[in-house]
Amino acid sequence: MAKREKGLKTKKIPQATVTRLPIYLRYLKELMASGVDVVSSSDLAELAGGNGPQLRKDLSFLGEFGTRGVGYDVGLLATQIADFMGLKRARNVAIIGAGRIGTALVKYKGFVEKGFPILAVFDSDPNKIGLTVDGLKVRSLGDLKEALKSENIEICVIATPAPKAQEALDGFAEAGIKAVLNFAPVSLKVPEGVTLRQIDLAVEMQILSFLSELGA
Amino acid sequence: MAKREKGLKTKKIPQATVTRLPIYLRYLKELMASGVDVVSSSDLAELAGGNGPQLRKDLSFLGEFGTRGVGYDVGLLATQIADFMGLKRARNVAIIGAGRIGTALVKYKGFVEKGFPILAVFDSDPNKIGLTVDGLKVRSLGDLKEALKSENIEICVIATPAPKAQEALDGFAEAGIKAVLNFAPVSLKVPEGVTLRQIDLAVEMQILSFLSELGA
Repeated sequence: MAKREKGLKTKKIPQATVTRLPIYLRYLKELMASGVDVVSSSDLAELAGGNGPQLRKDLSFLGEFGTRGVGYDVGLLATQIADFMGLKRARNVAIIGAGRIGTALVKYKGFVEKGFPILAVFDSDPNKIGLTVDGLKVRSLGDLKEALKSENIEICVIATPAPKAQEALDGFAEAGIKAVLNFAPVSLKVPEGVTLRQIDLAVEMQILSFLSELGA
Repeated sequence: MAKREKGLKTKKIPQATVTRLPIYLRYLKELMASGVDVVSSSDLAELAGGNGPQLRKDLSFLGEFGTRGVGYDVGLLATQIADFMGLKRARNVAIIGAGRIGTALVKYKGFVEKGFPILAVFDSDPNKIGLTVDGLKVRSLGDLKEALKSENIEICVIATPAPKAQEALDGFAEAGIKAVLNFAPVSLKVPEGVTLRQIDLAVEMQILSFLSELGA
């Protein structure tokens, strides 16, 4: 019953709130590292580019927090956000594409620190298969399904050239992967049951240049 | 007068629309490359994870487009979005931080292809200064202000370790840079007059894992 209620509740969360909660969490952890115990809603909101009312609405999805005029308990709120987002356990990650972006991602320490260890990397290029990237052997795509299972992979990252990204996504879906992060700069048809997030670096540049010139 | 009207109009665009326009543009260019001349609003909307009414609202900021029941002229709409977003001219980019992420970004061909050539890379580490990354010499931070001016840099990218990111951002602002893309996983105080976008890879993982488990 409790589980079902949670399911119903979380479904109503706006995507914008979901994208802000980890930003609040990151700032709260920075405050903890600096020995700060209490933060005002305006300070916390400002870092996420928002305002107090927006923050309070975002946090309302977690339940009741803070005391008006006093602020939020930094450690408590960090724990509550991490609990709510299910960040207490690690999720294993695989990367497909051992090129420049894929290799940089394998070596990026921020993933394992936040609970997303990269346990496998794949490529279709025979010249790359067998090479070692940061201690991980690059495997053949033929091993994908078996490796995803044996390594208990939950999240796959696409770092292939654009023309190979759809095939990679379809392969992940077939292997039962439900969460995919795509760095290939191409529009993908998302198989049912898969959640896809995309980071298109050139698109980020386009958005940034437009926003910075707005009203200028 | 025309300029002022445009300024007033663009200021009212929701940020979500701004983030979707380049996604539509990317898909339109893919269609052009495949020889497709006309696209329905539902097809175009689906790729951006939205629906027809949302697409029509997004495009309403550009003026009037498409004919109900016929669809959009792919080439015309691509031109209109690119014009509207000011993407007809290139903007020079500098990267601070010649580590793994910074180096991968320097080598990423997608930036120059979309009109964002990387013309300078900086680092504070004496062991990196003078090295060459993809034909670019890594420069000292002491040369930053002069180089940003002489290379006519408009966008700066932060790829430093987290503790050095705020200093980098403040330095850019002081040098008159108005657009900054930050890859360092840290909350930054944004100087007035600067537009900051942030890509925090671990935060993307957190959002993805939460969304994929929603209702599961």
